[in-house]
Amino acid sequence: MSETQLFDRVAIIGCGLIGSSLARAMQRDGMAGEIRACVRSAESRAKIMELGIADSVHESPADTVEGADLVVLCAPVGANESIAQAMASALAPEVIVTDVGSVKQAVIRDVSPFLDSGMHFVPGHPIAGSEHSGPEAGFADLFDNRYCILTPPPGTDEAAVERVAALWRRCGARVELMDAKHHDKVLAITSHLPHLIAYTIVDTAANLEESERAEVIRYSAGGFRDFTRIAASDPVMWRDVFLNNRDAVLEMLQRFNEDISQLQRAIRWGEGDLLQSIFHKTCEIRRSVIEMGQAGTFDPREPGSQDGSQS
Amino acid sequence: MSETQLFDRVAIIGCGLIGSSLARAMQRDGMAGEIRACVRSAESRAKIMELGIADSVHESPADTVEGADLVVLCAPVGANESIAQAMASALAPEVIVTDVGSVKQAVIRDVSPFLDSGMHFVPGHPIAGSEHSGPEAGFADLFDNRYCILTPPPGTDEAAVERVAALWRRCGARVELMDAKHHDKVLAITSHLPHLIAYTIVDTAANLEESERAEVIRYSAGGFRDFTRIAASDPVMWRDVFLNNRDAVLEMLQRFNEDISQLQRAIRWGEGDLLQSIFHKTCEIRRSVIEMGQAGTFDPREPGSQDGSQS
Repeated sequence: MSETQLFDRVAIIGCGLIGSSLARAMQRDGMAGEIRACVRSAESRAKIMELGIADSVHESPADTVEGADLVVLCAPVGANESIAQAMASALAPEVIVTDVGSVKQAVIRDVSPFLDSGMHFVPGHPIAGSEHSGPEAGFADLFDNRYCILTPPPGTDEAAVERVAALWRRCGARVELMDAKHHDKVLAITSHLPHLIAYTIVDTAANLEESERAEVIRYSAGGFRDFTRIAASDPVMWRDVFLNNRDAVLEMLQRFNEDISQLQRAIRWGEGDLLQSIFHKTCEIRRSVIEMGQAGTFDPREPGSQDGSQS
Repeated sequence: MSETQLFDRVAIIGCGLIGSSLARAMQRDGMAGEIRACVRSAESRAKIMELGIADSVHESPADTVEGADLVVLCAPVGANESIAQAMASALAPEVIVTDVGSVKQAVIRDVSPFLDSGMHFVPGHPIAGSEHSGPEAGFADLFDNRYCILTPPPGTDEAAVERVAALWRRCGARVELMDAKHHDKVLAITSHLPHLIAYTIVDTAANLEESERAEVIRYSAGGFRDFTRIAASDPVMWRDVFLNNRDAVLEMLQRFNEDISQLQRAIRWGEGDLLQSIFHKTCEIRRSVIEMGQAGTFDPREPGSQDGSQS
């Protein structure tokens, strides 16, 4: 391997926004001797070859992982078990398997049983993405300055963890280690619940009568528009996230329901002081987000700072 | 009056983000012979003189409106009644009064009783803003390509409506006429409910234990961050919006609660097809928003198109 090369042969299973971005980042930086992509639809396979983001593209997971020293699962999390089953017999004896899913306990449950001892499983989650899907939506610097959380189960080979961490650092990400269960809880509130709520409010608007719906779209700049962007995220990916992080999502949703009931009651009974004090508290959280460098000047891709979109 | 001048003396009552942006737009384009601002806090009065966005700044609404042919109410909507009472005796006999509030039935209820026949009240609502507040947050092109909805009650003098419409068009806005009750219902779903929900989810996160809260902020790029921006909007302004559009907000919140219960149940019972079909429906609403020119390429200030912020 050359100095910059981290792996000889990388198999990327599922090549949508995240998988194709990872392939592009690896290409940009010469991290892999060879990149093999596995995609189910013939159309996407043709697109990937056209875009030139993999050295070869395959329909079967087993064909793809043949001789690979790194396998990256990038399909919706609900597909992991059948992919693991399909590729198991073709995996190299000391392969490192990782993934990019937004839920980590489920992937450990679904994939680990198919890996022999000697193989290494390092679950991972780059906190990056957009509402756009498909191989053409990816770009090499998607992970720049983003966090990537690894959740290796206790006893995972440290050298394997370090190799996966090195890969993400070379993609520009800030790597953190975390317990899988804790990850799922934190992401339930920072990502899964926000998406569920955005889907819901856009659904509420979609259920209005036709004439009102047209006006909602027309006047969406008042706040609704931001939710439509989040609610345009990939339906299958998010279906699988909610079904596979059920307990944590339902717990956070229960807390949210209690909090919205309190606000509902305050509006009904005209309790202005309570409303105002809650709204002050939330302003402070925003300040913390900005101070942590997760918004504003830190990141040119931060949505909408100074954008003048509310009223 | 010169050719570009629309009013001799304009009184702007309340000079935060919207009021100061309107003053700047009027100055930029020579729309007013004189701009007088009314602000309660001494600090903001000093700031306005320092910024030079008004010809004079006053503490009392009555002093401010003296001899004005246009009065624009730009304070939080809960303050309108006491402002109307305070300025009533000083209003010129044929003055045009307008406002910029996000709720229209309440301002008609609160202000109309204080206006003599001969005076004209043209309620208005520019659908523009940001999470930033105060006179220093304003900018002259805030209203460019934004909708401004006017809700004149039946019988309002047409010439007065046209003069207010002309003002907003000169500010760059697209003016629409609407019934006040209908406005309040449409804005309840496009703006008020999104803000209420954003405040709630950020409140839910704020109520987590200290250690978890720090992680929520750290990993906020997964979707939560977008909500913190909306939930950083001015607490007093939004308290007043919710209290003054109570019925429409509670009705939309009820619909939202029904829709989120359906999703909650689908997650609990693993109904993936239902989740996926709802998420497909919401993607279509996003497409409509983009097609209507309310997102994406149309508006450079559109938050977060292509920003890569979710996961």
